[in-house]
Amino acid sequence: MAKERLYLFDTTLRDGAQTSGVDFSVDEKIAIAGLLDRLGVDYVEGGYPGANPTDSQFFEKKRTQNATFTAFGMTKRAGRSASNDPGLQVLLQSQSDAICFVAKSWDYHVKVALNSTNEENLEGISESVAAAVEAGKEALVDCEHFFDGFKANPSFALACAKAAFDAGARWVVLCDTNGGTLPDEIASTVKAVQEVVPGHHLGIHAHDDTGHAVANSLAAVSAGVRQIQGTLNGIGERCGNANLITLIPTLMLKAPFKDAYDLSISEQSLRDITTISRAFDEILNRTSNLHAPYVGRSAFATKAGIHASALLKEPETYEHVPPEVVGNQRRVLVSDQAGKSNLLGELKRLGIEADKYDPRLDALLAEVKELEAQGYSYEAADASFELMARRRLFSVPDYFNVISFRTGVERRYNAVGDQVTVSEAVVKVEIDGQTHMSVAEGNGPVNALDLALRKDLGRYQEVIDHLELIDYKVRILDGGTGAVTRVLIESMNKRTGQRWFTVGVSSNIVDASFRALTDSVRYIIFKTQQAAA
Amino acid sequence: MAKERLYLFDTTLRDGAQTSGVDFSVDEKIAIAGLLDRLGVDYVEGGYPGANPTDSQFFEKKRTQNATFTAFGMTKRAGRSASNDPGLQVLLQSQSDAICFVAKSWDYHVKVALNSTNEENLEGISESVAAAVEAGKEALVDCEHFFDGFKANPSFALACAKAAFDAGARWVVLCDTNGGTLPDEIASTVKAVQEVVPGHHLGIHAHDDTGHAVANSLAAVSAGVRQIQGTLNGIGERCGNANLITLIPTLMLKAPFKDAYDLSISEQSLRDITTISRAFDEILNRTSNLHAPYVGRSAFATKAGIHASALLKEPETYEHVPPEVVGNQRRVLVSDQAGKSNLLGELKRLGIEADKYDPRLDALLAEVKELEAQGYSYEAADASFELMARRRLFSVPDYFNVISFRTGVERRYNAVGDQVTVSEAVVKVEIDGQTHMSVAEGNGPVNALDLALRKDLGRYQEVIDHLELIDYKVRILDGGTGAVTRVLIESMNKRTGQRWFTVGVSSNIVDASFRALTDSVRYIIFKTQQAAA
Repeated sequence: MAKERLYLFDTTLRDGAQTSGVDFSVDEKIAIAGLLDRLGVDYVEGGYPGANPTDSQFFEKKRTQNATFTAFGMTKRAGRSASNDPGLQVLLQSQSDAICFVAKSWDYHVKVALNSTNEENLEGISESVAAAVEAGKEALVDCEHFFDGFKANPSFALACAKAAFDAGARWVVLCDTNGGTLPDEIASTVKAVQEVVPGHHLGIHAHDDTGHAVANSLAAVSAGVRQIQGTLNGIGERCGNANLITLIPTLMLKAPFKDAYDLSISEQSLRDITTISRAFDEILNRTSNLHAPYVGRSAFATKAGIHASALLKEPETYEHVPPEVVGNQRRVLVSDQAGKSNLLGELKRLGIEADKYDPRLDALLAEVKELEAQGYSYEAADASFELMARRRLFSVPDYFNVISFRTGVERRYNAVGDQVTVSEAVVKVEIDGQTHMSVAEGNGPVNALDLALRKDLGRYQEVIDHLELIDYKVRILDGGTGAVTRVLIESMNKRTGQRWFTVGVSSNIVDASFRALTDSVRYIIFKTQQAAA
Repeated sequence: MAKERLYLFDTTLRDGAQTSGVDFSVDEKIAIAGLLDRLGVDYVEGGYPGANPTDSQFFEKKRTQNATFTAFGMTKRAGRSASNDPGLQVLLQSQSDAICFVAKSWDYHVKVALNSTNEENLEGISESVAAAVEAGKEALVDCEHFFDGFKANPSFALACAKAAFDAGARWVVLCDTNGGTLPDEIASTVKAVQEVVPGHHLGIHAHDDTGHAVANSLAAVSAGVRQIQGTLNGIGERCGNANLITLIPTLMLKAPFKDAYDLSISEQSLRDITTISRAFDEILNRTSNLHAPYVGRSAFATKAGIHASALLKEPETYEHVPPEVVGNQRRVLVSDQAGKSNLLGELKRLGIEADKYDPRLDALLAEVKELEAQGYSYEAADASFELMARRRLFSVPDYFNVISFRTGVERRYNAVGDQVTVSEAVVKVEIDGQTHMSVAEGNGPVNALDLALRKDLGRYQEVIDHLELIDYKVRILDGGTGAVTRVLIESMNKRTGQRWFTVGVSSNIVDASFRALTDSVRYIIFKTQQAAA
C-alpha cells in the first residue's frame, strides 16, 4: 500500500515564542529557522509580522531555504473589507509563502472576546483566505479552541472549518488551544470534521496541559489528519506545544506510522535530531531536558546493575529503538547503585580498557560513591570522572600544582563618582619545579581566577589557549553538616570542537569553581597529549 | 452507575530511585513516604530490602500511615525452594504489608538474561506469590517487558500473568518496561490479558520513552486495568515513569474518568497537589518544571496580550480547569510582549491597584522591557518586580544605601601545612544618615557578603534575622556586548514561611549576587512593614 504524505508544521518561532522566559531576537529567529531547515520540516511559522518590530523585521525576507515560510495573523476585522484591513495587508505583503490565519471557532469567544457575530466571523475567515489565495500565497486556518467550540456548538465549529476550506485554504488546523482535550475526543471530533473537510486537508495543533500533546497529535493522525503542528523541544505557552522532536522518531520508527506515512524528514536528519534538539536549547540558553524522549542525555541511560550487564549483551531486548538512529548514545551510569559492570561499561565508553578483576576498580568504585555522597555527580561530569578514573588506574600527571590563589571583588565609587565593581585574582602555580605567579582582572572572581590561572602555564600555554568556558552551573546541595556548592563547568576545545563537563564541590563557591576549572584545564592538556601520542 | 475503584501505586522510592542523579537517603525516603501519605495513594513501593543498605534500613519499620507499604524484589531464583532463597526471605521478613515481585514475561529474557527455562520462570512466579500470601502479605507481580513479551510469544506472556493470578496475587501489573509501546497496542494487549486475569486485578506500569506514559496509563484503564503505577513528578529511569501528579487531576476532573472511577485521593489532597509536587522537588533539590501539567508555575500563565484581557474576564473559556482546584495560580506574565493589560493583571496579583491610565505604567512597562533586554527575567523574580513596580508607582524607601563592599577568597597553606580556603567580606552601608561598616567570614564570597550585610542593619536588624537564603541559581547569558551573569535567589521569611525570588544581573557574579541579595533584604523589610501597617 502506498504511503500517505504527512506534513510537519513548526510553530517554534510563533507559538513557541509565547513560552514564559523566552524572547527571540531577529538573529535568534534566523538561527532557529536554519535549524528547522536542517531538520527538514514542511512549514516554518515565523511569527506575526505587524504585531511587533522583531517579527516585522523577520518577515522582510524569506528566511527558509526549503520549508514553506509562513506568517501568522488574525483574520480581517469585522466591519472592514480585506483591502481596508491594515493587519491583513501587512500579512499579504510580507515575504511569506503562506499565511496561517487564526480564527475563532467557538461562538462564545466570537461574542465575548471579539464582540462580533457568527456571520461576521465566517465572513472574516472566507475573505481572509480568499485574499491570501489571490495574493498567490498558500492559506491555512488555525481554528482556535476547536474541540471546546465543537462541544459547545458543533454546527458553528464545523461551519468555520468549512468556510476556510471552501474559500481555498490548503489546510484547516484544529487547535486544542487550552490543551484540555483527551485522545478519544480528539479522534471522534476529527472524524466528525471530515464531513466538511477531507482528512488530507486537516491539521492538528495540540498543547500539553494534560500531558497528551504527543498522544493527541498521533490520535488525530490515526483519525485522519495529515498535518501536525508542534515546536522544537515542545516549547510553548503554559505546558508547551506538541514536541516535534518526540513525534518525529515515533513517526519514522514505529508501527503503524512508519509503514503508513512519509515525512519530509530524511534518515540523516533523524540521526541529527539529538544535535538539533540540543542546539536549540543552546540558542535558548537553557539546560537540555536530560529525560527528553529519544534525545535526552539520559534517554538511553541505565543505572541498575542487573539491567546493565544484560543490556550490553543484547541492547535490542532492553531498548525500544537503537540510540544511534536518533544520534543519541547509550549510557551506563556510574552512581551509588552501580555495580562493577556499570563501572566497566562507563570506562569502556570513555575508551579506558580495564580488567574486571583489577582490585583498583573496587577502590575506584568506592571513591566514586564516597565523592557522590559529598555532592559530586559524575553522571553529569564525564571529564572529571575520566580524570579521576585514569589517575586511579594509570598514572596521569597533574601537569601543574596550584600552590595558592587569592581573588577579590570590590565595589566602590571611582574618581568620577560612579559605582564600579572590580575583580582581581592572583594565582601561584608550580610547573616542572618552577613557580609561576600571575595576576588578572576579570568580570568576576571566577573569571579573574580563570584568566590568572591560564595566563602563564609554562609549556602548556599553547594548549590552554584553545580552552573556552561555555557554561557554568551552580547548585547548592545539603551536604549533611552544611550546605555544599556544586559547580558544573562546560568547556570546549575551540580547535577540535570537543565539549566536556567538569565538576567541583566545596562549601565555597569560588573553591568549587576553581576545582572544576583546574579539572578542565588538566583535561584539555590530557586530551591534547593523548591525541598527539 | 456506580463508580469503580481505581488504585494508585507509587513507585517513586523504587523505580523513581533509578533516575539519573537521584539517590535517596533513608531520611529522604521517610520524608517522601510522608508526602505520599499526604497525597493519599493506595500503595507506596518503598524499595528493595536486601538489595542495598538504605532499603534494608528503610524496611525495618512500616513507613506509611495509610498506604499499603510495599517491598519490591525478584521472584525466587531457579533451582531453589522458596524457603531456601535468601532474597525472598528478606522480603517476607521485612515490615512491608505487600510484596511486588518483578518477573520476566518475555521468554527471550528468561533464556538470555536469567539463563533459565520457561517452566522455571512460571514456577518462580507461583511459588513466590504463594509464599507471600502464606506470610500474610498482599502479593503483586510486575510482569516485566510484558508488551514486547506478548508480541514475541503471547502464550508465554499470558502464562506468566495467569501463574501470578492463580497463585493468589491481588494484582498482576503489565509493565511497558522499555517504554516503546503506543496506546492502541497497550489497549489491545490489555484486552487480550483479560482472558486469563480479570481487569480489576490488572495494573499498568508505563514509561515515557515516546512521551506516552500518561496516555498509555489512561488507555490501559479504558481497556480494563484498575491500578496505575507511577511516580511523583514522573521521575524514573531514562525518560521517567508515568507522572502521578499529571494523572490524578485528569482522573478526578475530566470525563469519562471523573464519572467512572473513584480514587483514594480527596478533594483536599487535589488542592494540595501543587504543593506536594514542589515539596518533592525540594527534597530532590532540583528546579521544579515550570511547564508541568496542572502544577507548573507556568501551567496557567499566559503572555499574549490578546488572551490576557479576555482571560481575566472569563477564565473558564481559556483554561481547561480552574487553577485553584489543583492548588495552582493563574499568572499573567510581564514580558517583552506584554501589553498594558498583562502588566495590570500582574500588579493586581501582587496586590498593587493601579489605574490603567496612569502614565507611570507606560514608564514601568518600558523599564521592564529594557531590563529584560539586559537579562532580568521578571517572570521568575516576583519580589524584584514588585519592588521595582512599587518604587515607580509609589514611593518606597530603599531603607539602606550600600556605599561600598569588598570581598575576597584566598586559598593557601595554613600553619600545619593544610590547604584551606577562606572568604571574607567588608560592607559599608548608610542607614538614616549613619554609616555602618561590618566584616564577616563565610563559606564563599557571596555568603561572606550576605553575612556582612546583615550583621548590622541598624533598626532593621530584627527583621533581617528572619531572612533565610534557600536557593541560589546562576546562569550566564549572552548580553550582546559580552556575557552577563544572572543570579536568582530564593529567600524565605523563617517567621512567616513566605518565599520569594529576587534577581540580579551583572557581568560580575558577585555583583549580580549582591543585587539579588539586597533586593531580598529590602523586600523582607518592606513586607514586614506592610504587614505591620
